[in-house]
Amino acid sequence: MKARIYIRLKESVLDPQGKAVLAGLESLGFKGLEDVRVGKLVEITFAPGANRAKAAGEVKEMCEKLLANTVIEEYNFDLAD
Amino acid sequence: MKARIYIRLKESVLDPQGKAVLAGLESLGFKGLEDVRVGKLVEITFAPGANRAKAAGEVKEMCEKLLANTVIEEYNFDLAD
Repeated sequence: MKARIYIRLKESVLDPQGKAVLAGLESLGFKGLEDVRVGKLVEITFAPGANRAKAAGEVKEMCEKLLANTVIEEYNFDLAD
Repeated sequence: MKARIYIRLKESVLDPQGKAVLAGLESLGFKGLEDVRVGKLVEITFAPGANRAKAAGEVKEMCEKLLANTVIEEYNFDLAD
């Protein structure tokens, strides 16, 4: 089983990395872009036979404890077999 | 319209950041984890009225030119209204 975790800065938090990417894209000639935000993608592979409900609980705990800074970031995840 | 771009290291490329996260999770007591890979999530908001097919072509071009290092990274994306 694999967990895909998406971590983004909260809407209200400025994203200088995203602004830099936006400026880079515009300098390459891309037009009509409103905003760019850069986040993290964490993929966790569980050992075979992992329990889905237990894994979901653990992933939530991992995000709260280590992966996301919940003061400025929000996260969501999905589990795939 | 919004493009969500997922950028990952290719399978064959070592991911020291992922290994560090794996070690961190294990030191927090999480068991039964096989692997952790860390990638990037880039979200691009297009100005209203953007053409879907054109946007898809542009996002591919953005990835090839700026966002992903295609020597060591692979990407995929989806478009949502």
